[in-house]
Amino acid sequence: MDTAYVIDTLFTLFSITLIILMVPGFAMLEAGLVRTKNVSSVLTVNVMIYAVASMAFILVGFHLAFGDFQSTTMSQWAFFMFQMAFVGKAINIMSGGVGERARLLPLTLFTVIMGAFIYPTAVNISWGSDWIKDTVFDLSFVDLAGSTVIHSTGGWALLAAILIIGPRKGRYVGDQIRVIPASNIPLVVLGAMLLWIGWFGFNGGSVGSIATKEAADSVALTIFNTNAAGLAGAIAAGVLIYLRYKLFDITMILNGALGGLVAITAGPHLYTLYDSLAVGLIGGVLVVLAVPLFDRFRIDDPVGALSVHLVNGIWGTLAVGLFASNPAKGITFLNQLKGVGEIAVFVFTVSFVIIYAINKLVAFRASDDDQVQGLDVSECGLEAYPEFKRAI
Amino acid sequence: MDTAYVIDTLFTLFSITLIILMVPGFAMLEAGLVRTKNVSSVLTVNVMIYAVASMAFILVGFHLAFGDFQSTTMSQWAFFMFQMAFVGKAINIMSGGVGERARLLPLTLFTVIMGAFIYPTAVNISWGSDWIKDTVFDLSFVDLAGSTVIHSTGGWALLAAILIIGPRKGRYVGDQIRVIPASNIPLVVLGAMLLWIGWFGFNGGSVGSIATKEAADSVALTIFNTNAAGLAGAIAAGVLIYLRYKLFDITMILNGALGGLVAITAGPHLYTLYDSLAVGLIGGVLVVLAVPLFDRFRIDDPVGALSVHLVNGIWGTLAVGLFASNPAKGITFLNQLKGVGEIAVFVFTVSFVIIYAINKLVAFRASDDDQVQGLDVSECGLEAYPEFKRAI
Amino acid sequence: MDTAYVIDTLFTLFSITLIILMVPGFAMLEAGLVRTKNVSSVLTVNVMIYAVASMAFILVGFHLAFGDFQSTTMSQWAFFMFQMAFVGKAINIMSGGVGERARLLPLTLFTVIMGAFIYPTAVNISWGSDWIKDTVFDLSFVDLAGSTVIHSTGGWALLAAILIIGPRKGRYVGDQIRVIPASNIPLVVLGAMLLWIGWFGFNGGSVGSIATKEAADSVALTIFNTNAAGLAGAIAAGVLIYLRYKLFDITMILNGALGGLVAITAGPHLYTLYDSLAVGLIGGVLVVLAVPLFDRFRIDDPVGALSVHLVNGIWGTLAVGLFASNPAKGITFLNQLKGVGEIAVFVFTVSFVIIYAINKLVAFRASDDDQVQGLDVSECGLEAYPEFKRAI
Repeated sequence: MDTAYVIDTLFTLFSITLIILMVPGFAMLEAGLVRTKNVSSVLTVNVMIYAVASMAFILVGFHLAFGDFQSTTMSQWAFFMFQMAFVGKAINIMSGGVGERARLLPLTLFTVIMGAFIYPTAVNISWGSDWIKDTVFDLSFVDLAGSTVIHSTGGWALLAAILIIGPRKGRYVGDQIRVIPASNIPLVVLGAMLLWIGWFGFNGGSVGSIATKEAADSVALTIFNTNAAGLAGAIAAGVLIYLRYKLFDITMILNGALGGLVAITAGPHLYTLYDSLAVGLIGGVLVVLAVPLFDRFRIDDPVGALSVHLVNGIWGTLAVGLFASNPAKGITFLNQLKGVGEIAVFVFTVSFVIIYAINKLVAFRASDDDQVQGLDVSECGLEAYPEFKRAI
Repeated sequence: MDTAYVIDTLFTLFSITLIILMVPGFAMLEAGLVRTKNVSSVLTVNVMIYAVASMAFILVGFHLAFGDFQSTTMSQWAFFMFQMAFVGKAINIMSGGVGERARLLPLTLFTVIMGAFIYPTAVNISWGSDWIKDTVFDLSFVDLAGSTVIHSTGGWALLAAILIIGPRKGRYVGDQIRVIPASNIPLVVLGAMLLWIGWFGFNGGSVGSIATKEAADSVALTIFNTNAAGLAGAIAAGVLIYLRYKLFDITMILNGALGGLVAITAGPHLYTLYDSLAVGLIGGVLVVLAVPLFDRFRIDDPVGALSVHLVNGIWGTLAVGLFASNPAKGITFLNQLKGVGEIAVFVFTVSFVIIYAINKLVAFRASDDDQVQGLDVSECGLEAYPEFKRAI
Repeated sequence: MDTAYVIDTLFTLFSITLIILMVPGFAMLEAGLVRTKNVSSVLTVNVMIYAVASMAFILVGFHLAFGDFQSTTMSQWAFFMFQMAFVGKAINIMSGGVGERARLLPLTLFTVIMGAFIYPTAVNISWGSDWIKDTVFDLSFVDLAGSTVIHSTGGWALLAAILIIGPRKGRYVGDQIRVIPASNIPLVVLGAMLLWIGWFGFNGGSVGSIATKEAADSVALTIFNTNAAGLAGAIAAGVLIYLRYKLFDITMILNGALGGLVAITAGPHLYTLYDSLAVGLIGGVLVVLAVPLFDRFRIDDPVGALSVHLVNGIWGTLAVGLFASNPAKGITFLNQLKGVGEIAVFVFTVSFVIIYAINKLVAFRASDDDQVQGLDVSECGLEAYPEFKRAI
C-alpha cells in the first residue's frame, strides 16, 4: 500500500516536470514563429500565463474543479500540482493565436478569469466531482488528457478572441494574404520538441497510476501511442507538403506532429498501435488542410493554434468514438460528440462575453502604430535582439 | 528494505538530471543577458565550471564535505553524484555576476579552489559530518537545499570578486549609470525556466528520501512550495514594475521568480502554502528593490546575481526562523541568523583572500581594449554570432 | 514481482524521455555549428530522422532486431519505445557529418533503409536474439549502450556517405582548408548539454533494470561513470587546446566532452571511477587529434562527427578489453576488436552500396549554386533567421 503511494507520487512528480517543460516549449515555439519585434512580448505572455494562471488555479480554480476531493493514492500535493500544471496550457493555446497584436494587460485579466473559473468549470464537468458535476450536468465522454478539456477549450477561447480582436495589421490587404515568415526556426524546433516530450508526462500522468502491472502497461502504452501519433502526424504533413511544393517545410511538419499529439490525447490508453498511427496521420493531414482554410475566412492565427489544437481537439475526441467505441462502457461516437459540443458552447460563449467585456474596459488590440513598431517596445520596453541589425 | 533503496536511488537519479539541466539553464540565462560580444566567453565559463568544479569535488571536495560517510539508504554513487551536481551552482552564481570583464584562466583557478575546498567546507559545517563539523564548529541551522550554503555562498564569493575586479568598462561614467540591454531575450526565458524546473530536483531531492508515505508527502510538499514561491516572486516583481513603469519587463519578472525560488530553498518542507507564497512574494519584491541599490553603490552585476542569490539567500534562511520557528527542535530566528553570519564571514573572507591572491598571479580583469572588443575574441577566439550584422 | 515490474517500467520511461531529449539536443548542436543559410535544412533533417527512422523501426526494424522477444520484466511498450528511441541517434550521427551539402530526399530514403534494416541488423548480432544472431553469427563482445552499435555504426555510415558525396563547396580550395565558423554558439552549448544529460538515460537505461539493490548500484555507477568520462573529456580537450593556442575554444571543449561520453558508453557499468576518467580523458584527446587529421585527408565533416562518434566508438569498445578484461566471462581485447571489426565491415559495406545506389536515383549532393545560396532556400523554402541582416 505504502509502496504504491510512494511510486505514484514519484511518477506524478516526474510527469509534472515534463508538463512544466512545456512552458519553455510553448514560449520558444511562439517566440520563433512571430516577428522579432514581437518576441519579448510573446515571451512575456507565456511567462505571465504560467505565473498568473497557476496562481489563480491554486487559490480558486482547484477547489472549483475538484471540490473537497482528497487524493488517497498519492500525495495530495503531487495531485494538486499535476492539475495546476495543466491550466496554463489551455490559455497558452489561446494567447499564441492572438500574438503580435493582443496587449498584455487585458490578456492578464483574461488569464485570471480563465484560470480561476472557465477552465476549472470545464474540468469539473468533464473530469471532476462535486457540485457542478453532480447538480448541473455530467459530460460522460472519454477525454483522458484533454483533447477537448485542454485543447478545444483553448481553441474555442482563441476563436472568440480572434473574432473580437481581429487580424494583425497588414496581414490581409485587399484580396491579398501577406505571408509573414517565422523569425527564428531553431526556436520553433526546440519549442515543438519540448512540447512533444512534455506530452509524455501530460498523457502518461493522466492515467493516474503506474503502481500495478496493469497500470504500468497502461501508462507505457499511453506514452508509446502518444509518440506514435506525433510521428504519424509529422510524416503525414511532411509528405503532403512535399507532394505539393517539392519543399520540406519544417514549421508545417512540426505543426503536423503537434496535431497528431493533440488528436491522440483523448484516448491513447484505449488504442492499438495502428489506431494511434491512423489518429495521428489524420491529425497531421487536418493541420495541413486547416491552415489555409482559416486564412480564407480571414481568421488570423500566427502560430496555427486553431488548426493544431481546436481542429484536432475535436477530431481526437471523436476518434475515441470511432476507434475505441464500447457501448457497454458508454463509449460511443454520440457521447463523444455531445462532450465536444457542450464544451464548445460553454467555453466559446463564456469566453466571448468575458473577452468582449474586458475589451470594453481595456482595449485588447494594440494600436496600428504599436503593431508597426512592434509590441516589444510599447508593451515591454525592451527588444528581444537589440544588437542584431534587421534586414526587413 | 531493498524496495526503499531502489526507489530512493531512482528518485535521486531523477533529481540529479533536473539539477544538471540547470547547467544549460544558467548558461542560456547568462548568454541572453550579456552583450553579443561576450556570449561565447560567458558560455565557456559555464561549461568550464561544470567540468572543473565537478571534477575538483569528485577528486577532493566530496571527501572534505562528507568524510567517510557511506550512504546506506540509496546507492552511494547516486548520493555522490547528487552532491557533485550542487557544487557548480555556487560558482555559477559567482561567475555570472563578474561576466563581461572577468578572464577565464583566473576564473578556472578559483573554480578549482572553490570546488575542492571553499564550498565543501561550507557544506561540511552546515550539512556534513566528520572532522571540521565535529571538532571545529557545527552550524545548527535549517537550510534544506542551500539558501545559504549554495546561494549566499555564491553571492558572498561574488561580492568579494566584484570588489576586486571592479565594474565593466563604460558601465559607470561620471554620475551616469549606463543601461546595457540584454542581447537575446528568448535565451533568458529558456534559461530561467530550465533553472525553475531544475529547482524541483534541487529542493525535492534534498529531502533525501521519498520511500515512505511521510517522505513522499514531504517531497511533494517541497516541490509544490518551491514552485509556489517562484510564482509569487514573478507576480510580485511584475506588479511592482508595472505599477511604476506601465511596462512588462520580462527580465525583472524572471529575476523575481528566481528570487522567490532562492528564498524558499531553505525551508520548503516546513511551510504551508501561504507561508510559501509570502516567502516568495517578499523574495520578488527584494529583487526589484535590490537591483538599483547595488547600482547606487557601483557594484556592477550584469545578471542581477547579488539581488537574486545573495539577498534572497539571506532572506530565505531568516524566513525559516520567522515562518517555521520551532524552539523545541532548535529552529529559531537567532540560530538562522547565526548560520547566515558564520557562512558570510567564512566565505567572504576566504574568497576575498584567494581572489586577491589569484589576481596578483593572473589578472582577473580583462583589459579595457579587450572589453571594448568583447571577450569572445580575446579569450575564446570565436564569436557567438559571426554572421549577424551588429546594429550597436 | 509486480513492484519490480512497475519500477523498471517507470525507470525505462524516465530513460526514454532523456533519450528523446537528445533529438532537440542533436538539432540545436548541429543548427549552431552550420552556417545560417543551412540552419533550417539541418533542423529539418533532424526532425525528419526522428519521425522516419522511428516509424521504420516500429513497423519493421524492431522485429528484425528482436524477433519475437517479449519483455517480461517491464511493460513491453516501454521496452519497445526504449529501443525505438535509439535508432535515430545512429542516423543523426551520419546526417550531421554530411550537413550543408546533402539533400533531404535521398537522406530520407537512406533513413528508411537504415532504420528498417541496417541498424536493426547491427542490433540483432550485438544485442539481439533470434534468427540472424542464432544462425549467422553472434558477436560476443561487450557494448552496453552502443559505442559500437550506435556510435561506430553511425560513423561508418557517415564515412561511406562522405566518400560518395564529397566535401562542401569551397571547403578545400587548392592547398587551403577554409575555416567555416559556427553560426550560433548558444545553440551549440544547449545542444551539447542536452545530449550530455540524455546520455544518462541512454547508458543508465541500458543496464535494463534498477529493481534490486545490485541493479540500482549498477545503474547509479553507470550514470556516475558516464558523467565522469564527459567531465574528463571536456577538461582534456580544453587543456590541450589552451596549451596550444592560449584560447578557450568552447566547440572543441564540448566535442571533447562528447568524445568522452561516446568512449565510456561501451562499459560504464564495469569501470571504477579512475578507469572512467582515463577512458574519457583519452576520448577528449582523441577528438582534438582527429579533427585536423580528417581535414588533412579532405574528409569534410562540419560537426566533427567522425572524431567524436567513430574514433571514440572504436576507442570505447576497445577500452573495455583493456580496463575491464575478464577472460572467464569472455571479455577480452580480442573479442572487443573482433566486434568493432565485424560491425565496421558490415555497416560500411552495406551503407556504401545503398548510398551509392540512392545517389544514382536521386543525387545526394546539392548543386554548387544551391550550396552557395544555402540549402534552406532550395530544400525548405524558408530561411532560419529571415530578419537578421547577414554580415558575411
